[in-house]
Amino acid sequence: MKGIFITIEGPDGSGKTSVIKSLLPRLEKELAQKIVATREPGGSAIAEKIRELILDPDHVEMDVRTEALLYAAARRQHLVEKIIPALNEGKIVLCDRFVDSSLAYQGVARGIGIEPIASINQFATKGLSPQITLYLDVEAHIGLKRINKNRNNRQFDRLDQEDLAFHQMVQSGYLDLVKQNPTRIISVNANQELEQVISDCYKILLEYFRQL
Amino acid sequence: MKGIFITIEGPDGSGKTSVIKSLLPRLEKELAQKIVATREPGGSAIAEKIRELILDPDHVEMDVRTEALLYAAARRQHLVEKIIPALNEGKIVLCDRFVDSSLAYQGVARGIGIEPIASINQFATKGLSPQITLYLDVEAHIGLKRINKNRNNRQFDRLDQEDLAFHQMVQSGYLDLVKQNPTRIISVNANQELEQVISDCYKILLEYFRQL
Repeated sequence: MKGIFITIEGPDGSGKTSVIKSLLPRLEKELAQKIVATREPGGSAIAEKIRELILDPDHVEMDVRTEALLYAAARRQHLVEKIIPALNEGKIVLCDRFVDSSLAYQGVARGIGIEPIASINQFATKGLSPQITLYLDVEAHIGLKRINKNRNNRQFDRLDQEDLAFHQMVQSGYLDLVKQNPTRIISVNANQELEQVISDCYKILLEYFRQL
Repeated sequence: MKGIFITIEGPDGSGKTSVIKSLLPRLEKELAQKIVATREPGGSAIAEKIRELILDPDHVEMDVRTEALLYAAARRQHLVEKIIPALNEGKIVLCDRFVDSSLAYQGVARGIGIEPIASINQFATKGLSPQITLYLDVEAHIGLKRINKNRNNRQFDRLDQEDLAFHQMVQSGYLDLVKQNPTRIISVNANQELEQVISDCYKILLEYFRQL
């Protein structure tokens, strides 16, 4: 792989979407090159259909392990169709959520366990991991408040039907991942005002590129 | 689990569907009880949608690992919604294809390897395995001839676009599984006339129930 694979992670309401939107043009200008910004399903028709299945509010009977396998399937397809080809062309890829999301959401918050989720994602990625991950760390009650505020602007899906305890477990899952991957994952305080979060993320990535 | 979990396996054209159709009423009469005959997606709305995704002839760009994860997801959902509840009620469940199919098709014929496929299916089944498996062993050229003969009666799907070499690999995968699971998997010569295959399967299952 000649490219650079960056992921951005965090609980719902951590501000990932806003951060990426603002970060991207600044980074592209500074580095004087285009960045491939993507997220699952990432324009893959197959991954898109898998995602529709996962998020369909009618699927209340979906087992947590079925859900985890579907996420891994969508991830695999997105990886093969979009991320790997871009990395092979030497591009910088910035992906909104990747394996860490499944570890925190399905592994910890849904109680399946980190190891089984890591195992099916190892199958999906064949070990391909981001070189650097920005983790937007937000307190559950702050994240939830932001989600509810944006409710009218967002499509309400099955995963939003979760409560504070669930969001706290997601955060706790992420914090364990930060401890276990201190070199790859860099935590950013996302309780701050959005402009400060964007600024922190920008500095971290610039520093990363300077050291390459 | 109080019930009995039986699976029937074999390459396409091995006669599974015809065997089950004929075997079922005979067995139910002999044992004086109803048998739950099922196959993935087994009436699960979610598993049905996953299966549609896998078999859609338009999805030529589907990665083999995506396919394997989708099969595992459909299997999980079918297991949770149908097989496990029936076994918990003490019923006999006869399932057309299960994990062995993925090991032979995705693991061997598609070249992913037995171990990775076993691993994601372990995740899907949490180790639930059939007590007894009938494997209908048919030579690839005989199986293919039967498929082509039935072509007008069957829906042509993406998986039928495979050739003789693929079917030979499926058979070779199954034969390895028979060697590795000599107690659980019982091989039946499915090159014979259908009536003889049915008769052989019937005798094996009756013998199994007598020894319980």
